[in-house]
Amino acid sequence: MYKADLNQLDLILESVWNEILSQSKLVQAIFKGDICKALFVMYMLETYHYTKHNTKNQALVGVRNLTLPHRYTSYCFKHAREEIGHEDMALRDIANLDFVLPEIKNLKPLPATEVLIAYLYWISFQGNPIQRLGYSYWAESCYHYINPIIQKLSSVLKLKEDQLSFFIAHSSIDEKHFKEVADMILSFCYSEQDFQDITRVMETSLRLTGQMLDNVYHEYQKVLQGKSNLYPFLSKQSIPA
Amino acid sequence: MYKADLNQLDLILESVWNEILSQSKLVQAIFKGDICKALFVMYMLETYHYTKHNTKNQALVGVRNLTLPHRYTSYCFKHAREEIGHEDMALRDIANLDFVLPEIKNLKPLPATEVLIAYLYWISFQGNPIQRLGYSYWAESCYHYINPIIQKLSSVLKLKEDQLSFFIAHSSIDEKHFKEVADMILSFCYSEQDFQDITRVMETSLRLTGQMLDNVYHEYQKVLQGKSNLYPFLSKQSIPA
Amino acid sequence: MYKADLNQLDLILESVWNEILSQSKLVQAIFKGDICKALFVMYMLETYHYTKHNTKNQALVGVRNLTLPHRYTSYCFKHAREEIGHEDMALRDIANLDFVLPEIKNLKPLPATEVLIAYLYWISFQGNPIQRLGYSYWAESCYHYINPIIQKLSSVLKLKEDQLSFFIAHSSIDEKHFKEVADMILSFCYSEQDFQDITRVMETSLRLTGQMLDNVYHEYQKVLQGKSNLYPFLSKQSIPA
Amino acid sequence: MYKADLNQLDLILESVWNEILSQSKLVQAIFKGDICKALFVMYMLETYHYTKHNTKNQALVGVRNLTLPHRYTSYCFKHAREEIGHEDMALRDIANLDFVLPEIKNLKPLPATEVLIAYLYWISFQGNPIQRLGYSYWAESCYHYINPIIQKLSSVLKLKEDQLSFFIAHSSIDEKHFKEVADMILSFCYSEQDFQDITRVMETSLRLTGQMLDNVYHEYQKVLQGKSNLYPFLSKQSIPA
Repeated sequence: MYKADLNQLDLILESVWNEILSQSKLVQAIFKGDICKALFVMYMLETYHYTKHNTKNQALVGVRNLTLPHRYTSYCFKHAREEIGHEDMALRDIANLDFVLPEIKNLKPLPATEVLIAYLYWISFQGNPIQRLGYSYWAESCYHYINPIIQKLSSVLKLKEDQLSFFIAHSSIDEKHFKEVADMILSFCYSEQDFQDITRVMETSLRLTGQMLDNVYHEYQKVLQGKSNLYPFLSKQSIPA
Repeated sequence: MYKADLNQLDLILESVWNEILSQSKLVQAIFKGDICKALFVMYMLETYHYTKHNTKNQALVGVRNLTLPHRYTSYCFKHAREEIGHEDMALRDIANLDFVLPEIKNLKPLPATEVLIAYLYWISFQGNPIQRLGYSYWAESCYHYINPIIQKLSSVLKLKEDQLSFFIAHSSIDEKHFKEVADMILSFCYSEQDFQDITRVMETSLRLTGQMLDNVYHEYQKVLQGKSNLYPFLSKQSIPA
Repeated sequence: MYKADLNQLDLILESVWNEILSQSKLVQAIFKGDICKALFVMYMLETYHYTKHNTKNQALVGVRNLTLPHRYTSYCFKHAREEIGHEDMALRDIANLDFVLPEIKNLKPLPATEVLIAYLYWISFQGNPIQRLGYSYWAESCYHYINPIIQKLSSVLKLKEDQLSFFIAHSSIDEKHFKEVADMILSFCYSEQDFQDITRVMETSLRLTGQMLDNVYHEYQKVLQGKSNLYPFLSKQSIPA
Repeated sequence: MYKADLNQLDLILESVWNEILSQSKLVQAIFKGDICKALFVMYMLETYHYTKHNTKNQALVGVRNLTLPHRYTSYCFKHAREEIGHEDMALRDIANLDFVLPEIKNLKPLPATEVLIAYLYWISFQGNPIQRLGYSYWAESCYHYINPIIQKLSSVLKLKEDQLSFFIAHSSIDEKHFKEVADMILSFCYSEQDFQDITRVMETSLRLTGQMLDNVYHEYQKVLQGKSNLYPFLSKQSIPA
């Protein structure tokens, strides 16, 4: 009987994360302390945008297919439920930083964020019905990689707990979620093809998230240069001269 | 503030049920005792078919719309989860009657059942996102109307508990579900238009279920006359001469 | 090689049509001359509603499947294009009868019409990709059966050409369409199962259309009795005392 | 009345193209003549993959929305029809290079190609219904930018006409298409927001195509190093030592 090798997933994950973290100008800027609250707000906005869709595309996996094992369908809806409203935490963190956002429906995601969203619906709607587990596998275990970044960010910007609730809440919830994801992969990854499909989605969705970071940083440079018109609500004083 | 009048729903429901029950030849045959196990199997097969889709179309309501209240989205996925696998009970009841079905994927629903399924996806996929509550409102409270029928059926056919598990299980689960449905209607039916949309789906889906009963009875007549080729697995001895 | 037997389709069609026409109270009322313009308007409104969706559900067949023969995909989009805007003819016929409709988006189809619409999306979205040809097969050839009804209707109500444009236009367009539909069935109906799927959709969609006629007549009775609130725009004088 | 400024689209397009072409290692390799037929085959395979979906996502725009202007719906289905089967040209060009592909259903697109496909469905399925015109705007006019590349490729690899049919056919068809696209934008781009939505899709889909080129080149390097297992059908002799 086929048994998915989670260690192999972990190794691939490590190499993709290292590639992203070492090349990300956003991450480098954070470690240099070369950041300001406006950048954090910009990042949290993108987090808001893609997080809002996670409930939907997760449940979509359970909707589209009449032949899924009941336990996997049940996981899809349970996990979807547990993600409901998480996007609101991102908005609250922004509000607690005393930024006043315009009506959120008027804020569009950056292109790279929209591409990530598009991809997550695509792999949820068609293809191997268990492939979305590849996304959850890295997303629910990302704190291993991003905690140092958030800590640095937090100390440089002197963020309080109620300005970091999204990350704090997730780092505890996600531990439980990650175990469920691993359990689902071990239970329903029946073949080498299944494993490849999960791996592919894991890698691709993580890389697209890396591109989202790049897009945030690129737009941030434009903000600093006064060339972006996307964030009229970022007051002058929130941006270093 | 608008408050949905559940009594009005109940009154409409009563009148539609009475119309259906009084006109249904299937129901009349049951009360006359003019039935056999083959008819029960035929009915349980249709039950299997539409029940299998209920999880999917219920969850679909929560997937399609980014602007639903979180509590309603949560209800959709919770309710969807609780319906998972109920169709299997219908098959088990048939198996416990010692009927050997062909591979289930080769069994198609009767036309009226397929129309019911089509309608439930349609009202779940588009239109007022709370309108599907109209379907749940009658479906989760139907035992008030159908218990006498099931009891008669059960006594005529001498059915055992493990041949009636679908109905027994549902009559207890559904009480809890019904309270949740009523709570959702009271919470999220904000206007007369909402109320009309719920009412419309309640009436239409109940009438389509009535037509499903008619279709079963019509096909049963064909079976009795040796003119149906849909049920090769109904042995001669299960059908009265 | 399998060859679809169109004669068999025609025979089934004849028997379903005869059943519908002989039982339809609407048709009987027309032949008795026991009708008024309000009834015609009510019928044309339902025609408007389901016709509006025909372009969409026809094209949907070509969208959903990557493995269709190119010629069939091409047919789907060609046919979809040729149906664009036909619903407007129904509205214009009503306007030319000097009825002033409210904003059309505020007019909902009757329940039976909505069920027909739901079914046509369902069979277009899933199942055998050629099954929708069963709907087109009867719809594009219906004038054989309904011409006498329209002629009677027209003479009783003294309708002019520009009040009957929907029917006049279709009876000529549809001849060409019907040939294409027959050609598609002969080309792509590869097996007995395909033939059954087409037959099933033909029968079911025709019966649902019959139920739409019943629903119109039922609602018309309510209008006559002053019990319908769906048509505030039907002036008193358009309805016989 | 708002009038879309096509010149502005052209200017943005020029700057994105220049950015892509100047940074693309694939394009640089072609101009250096540092390529082989295997690379061309790899590129044509990705072309096959995303082209296959263009018919579907184009028609999807016309399906999803009941309130589109008829002329725009008509354009969607006409354009979708004209794209049917174009993916076959890509496969034929490969076959004419004497490469024997495995069954095509066993060939998956590279990740960057799948992301492009996902994005095109996403922007076709939701959002501004005219935004997909931004994709067509660059895709139907790309020959201005890519002809020099194809000519160089063709001369280095000594490609014959029947090995370049995809590009030859498109460079003539697309001129007509481009005029239609421009006409649609001028006709249905009613506001600055519409223009921004079109621009956004134009830029994003072009950049994703650029990333597809990068992905092909990256995988090609792996092929040269014997590290890719995606193309077992690329014979040793087709790859330079």
